[in-house]
Amino acid sequence: MTDKPKIRPSLPTHWYIDADHYERELKAIWYRDWIAVGRFEQIPEPGDYFVTKIGTQQIIVTRDKDNVPRAYHNTCRHRGSIICTELEGRFRNGRIICPYHTWTYGLDGKLLATPFRMESDDFDPGDYPLYDVAVDTWKGFIFVCLDEHPSQTLEQALGEEAKEVESWPLEDMVIVHEEVSVLDCNWKIFWENYNECYHCPRIHPELCKVVPLYAEGIQGHYDQPGWEPKDERDNGEPSVAEGMTTWTVDGISALPELEGLDGKKKAKGMTFATLLGSMYVVGHPQYARSVRLRPLGPETLELTATWFLPPETAAAHPEEVEHLLSLVRLVIAQDGRACEWNQAGLHSHRHTQGVLVPQESGVAWIHDWLRGKLGES
Amino acid sequence: MTDKPKIRPSLPTHWYIDADHYERELKAIWYRDWIAVGRFEQIPEPGDYFVTKIGTQQIIVTRDKDNVPRAYHNTCRHRGSIICTELEGRFRNGRIICPYHTWTYGLDGKLLATPFRMESDDFDPGDYPLYDVAVDTWKGFIFVCLDEHPSQTLEQALGEEAKEVESWPLEDMVIVHEEVSVLDCNWKIFWENYNECYHCPRIHPELCKVVPLYAEGIQGHYDQPGWEPKDERDNGEPSVAEGMTTWTVDGISALPELEGLDGKKKAKGMTFATLLGSMYVVGHPQYARSVRLRPLGPETLELTATWFLPPETAAAHPEEVEHLLSLVRLVIAQDGRACEWNQAGLHSHRHTQGVLVPQESGVAWIHDWLRGKLGES
Amino acid sequence: MTDKPKIRPSLPTHWYIDADHYERELKAIWYRDWIAVGRFEQIPEPGDYFVTKIGTQQIIVTRDKDNVPRAYHNTCRHRGSIICTELEGRFRNGRIICPYHTWTYGLDGKLLATPFRMESDDFDPGDYPLYDVAVDTWKGFIFVCLDEHPSQTLEQALGEEAKEVESWPLEDMVIVHEEVSVLDCNWKIFWENYNECYHCPRIHPELCKVVPLYAEGIQGHYDQPGWEPKDERDNGEPSVAEGMTTWTVDGISALPELEGLDGKKKAKGMTFATLLGSMYVVGHPQYARSVRLRPLGPETLELTATWFLPPETAAAHPEEVEHLLSLVRLVIAQDGRACEWNQAGLHSHRHTQGVLVPQESGVAWIHDWLRGKLGES
Repeated sequence: MTDKPKIRPSLPTHWYIDADHYERELKAIWYRDWIAVGRFEQIPEPGDYFVTKIGTQQIIVTRDKDNVPRAYHNTCRHRGSIICTELEGRFRNGRIICPYHTWTYGLDGKLLATPFRMESDDFDPGDYPLYDVAVDTWKGFIFVCLDEHPSQTLEQALGEEAKEVESWPLEDMVIVHEEVSVLDCNWKIFWENYNECYHCPRIHPELCKVVPLYAEGIQGHYDQPGWEPKDERDNGEPSVAEGMTTWTVDGISALPELEGLDGKKKAKGMTFATLLGSMYVVGHPQYARSVRLRPLGPETLELTATWFLPPETAAAHPEEVEHLLSLVRLVIAQDGRACEWNQAGLHSHRHTQGVLVPQESGVAWIHDWLRGKLGES
Repeated sequence: MTDKPKIRPSLPTHWYIDADHYERELKAIWYRDWIAVGRFEQIPEPGDYFVTKIGTQQIIVTRDKDNVPRAYHNTCRHRGSIICTELEGRFRNGRIICPYHTWTYGLDGKLLATPFRMESDDFDPGDYPLYDVAVDTWKGFIFVCLDEHPSQTLEQALGEEAKEVESWPLEDMVIVHEEVSVLDCNWKIFWENYNECYHCPRIHPELCKVVPLYAEGIQGHYDQPGWEPKDERDNGEPSVAEGMTTWTVDGISALPELEGLDGKKKAKGMTFATLLGSMYVVGHPQYARSVRLRPLGPETLELTATWFLPPETAAAHPEEVEHLLSLVRLVIAQDGRACEWNQAGLHSHRHTQGVLVPQESGVAWIHDWLRGKLGES
Repeated sequence: MTDKPKIRPSLPTHWYIDADHYERELKAIWYRDWIAVGRFEQIPEPGDYFVTKIGTQQIIVTRDKDNVPRAYHNTCRHRGSIICTELEGRFRNGRIICPYHTWTYGLDGKLLATPFRMESDDFDPGDYPLYDVAVDTWKGFIFVCLDEHPSQTLEQALGEEAKEVESWPLEDMVIVHEEVSVLDCNWKIFWENYNECYHCPRIHPELCKVVPLYAEGIQGHYDQPGWEPKDERDNGEPSVAEGMTTWTVDGISALPELEGLDGKKKAKGMTFATLLGSMYVVGHPQYARSVRLRPLGPETLELTATWFLPPETAAAHPEEVEHLLSLVRLVIAQDGRACEWNQAGLHSHRHTQGVLVPQESGVAWIHDWLRGKLGES
């Protein structure tokens, strides 16, 4: 038998509230790590672009002539005007033109032209490319890294966890629905809530019917030492209930199953890849989905929930999409309310630190990751 | 003859504006003193509760099985969620249950249960009671003290001043009307305005007809050395005019007089108890009233004005209530406007400190109290 | 031949964003220099007043019995209430009366009376005049200086630049139209944009038809060394196009020309006087105009654009006013949009400093002025 697990302290309460600590996390994580910002399908043609924001930084994401993703700060090298005044659009003729003084850049960021003659012999256009940002894709998701010298490639950063959903053909799937919501909570509150099911019986009665293990207040066997299988199907990881195949309100879907899926994972009906700190992806037998995070302040978080299908399935069964959204939309709303409760209660001066119980080993894992990022592990 | 009184400086202007000084006052006064937050009649049954806010702190006030008031921070000991998501309600079956993970406390704040088995031998529920807050009542008013170790009992804190309204049966009276207003001023501006009548002739013409002494720009004889009585009735303290009995627009009321009142005080028609820094109470022959303060920021203040009658009088004469409100409602609005003017003018860089004239001895008294609280007396 | 001009760095980017640097500029410039705040014609009679705001400071501007302008902080010397609760009005009977306790001042700022007897022998009304502010006029414009000891007279501060529009009879002209707008940009961004025409071809196509030199991306010959006149009329300074006389959408006006104008300046159709940091004035053959600036925060600016005509012309040709506004109103809107683009782009962490090209010598001149004010020249 293993030793009894220990309780352990949560993070210092001021880490969820203080503007200074928020700034520290922006620098240590959001301005340094690979951050998911969208899908390559959002910019299908060379020159198509969208603008995203991480912390206070506006980033242009575009596709060059060779269909390679490119990203730049949305700032002209001249006197600092923004380049893109719209959130999405197309750069015509491969030219990125500042709207203020028409300094003109290529899709590769090189300064191609300034207006009129440059009456100065000390001006070298080579000194003034757009401020470039590291960008790469994984399974159709675009990630950027604002660090000028990324310490890892995207592949290294995603690591083993990304392989969880390896057999899902996400790179060939398309967005069938997307919802954006803003929560009054620190971004870490979201991840804590995401990574424990101690709250599930109270907060998610509908979900607990689809995933019976959640009704026991745990996410998996690692939350409960001494755990014993109840039946043959029970492998200690959560799975949808007997007779169900997927995450919908009734646990079923009329849509065809995806091809090439790992059989064991398909049988569970749900497979998570937790890509801290900006996204998680979930594979279900018939569809996939993702949730992206973006902190808007110490106590404000933006979530973007996205549902994916193969394009041919989406085209053949448009009437089935609404049914796919039903359970997850509900769960997201329930979690959002709980996250806001948690944030509100943290303002008590007496509550300097909470406590994690054994069922919250997943929260401890999030905390270890964060402490490591902040150099406090 | 007494010496001529001296003028004296007002408080430093930045004390009314600076966020840092505001924080200092929260700590020295609002988080340390006994603060009036409501009436015990608001929670008539065991388990009834309301939530109040002092500075950034949310406090639950409830009544236990023995009808004793209890107060707790609105924060769960687990991971810090708020406990009460509504501003008032009832804890069913004597159980205070956190809505996030259902940690369950008694009305006495003890942790009674956590969900599922606690797989840890180092978890002692006795270590996790709700964060308790000192609470007591005086004449039906509930006061809380956020200091973990209050330096005084409520009775000591209220002191002699509370005895001014001793003969008013406030503990047996009920709320017949309540109005909440928010002013753009520092909380000290309110008390300064409250405690001088130098402004009365200009600001309160209607009130000056009811209280003639106010028309002379003073609150009482202590504002004017060398003062001499004008007639027999004139004892140097303010009183309502000849032929009037109380504070209403016409100085009279059809309501019966309260029983057991101090005769001298009843004859004056008005008796104040100034319970710094969160409330004052006024006794009139037929009714009583209170005004509670709550700072919402350096330049924002919330006021709650409440009118009281004996329950049998309230039941027998509902049509008389509106008449009771008439004068005070007007005076509160007039004072509010003046307080906002005062706050607005304090932003001048040249005005580093104002001056108090002899008629403002009551303001000086407020300042002495405040300087003492801040350790600057 | 002259040497080739050099490129030079722009200002540090954080100077356009930081609250601390903004505070530094308020102190070094807006609270120290002579600032244009309005027109003397706005207060035609003795006792008329208006209230203006510079940074956080509210200033009353009035006209005394001798028709001399006077300015005071909008703060009573007693306990700091504002004196004027309206943005404009008239002091009756030469009395400035605080609305709170009726302390009463003369139009010269002297404390004339306090209510009731002052029971103190250490109170000298001579110690409590209104906080006065230096004020003077130039060509009908009112300027105030919040420095208690101005280092220059208004005339010295305006210097040679003011003489550019010496022949325009602005002191006898009247406001025929005024427009106020608020931009999301630092106030320096506005001046930079004002003082270069490198942006004109892209931003102002209509203006470039009226002032052909602007279509070349320069404001004057000083922007382009080695410049040679194209024809006899071309003197290296900008002027309206052949066949045009003034700044309107079609370059003409049915209004009579002003009398007494400098012939050479009149022929150009446009003469600027740049009165840093709060105003510029432009003289045209038929009319004049001004734009006043007022920073409202690090990233917010208020502009007031005003058009002037001689009173007899305004009375005789009211139908011509709208035509006068046409071009300038368009140009102001175009510049405002560009200024907001520039501000938005400055938030990139990579953009620590921009670059000025030779055509932006006027921007360099603004920067030199600013660095001098900040003691960094």
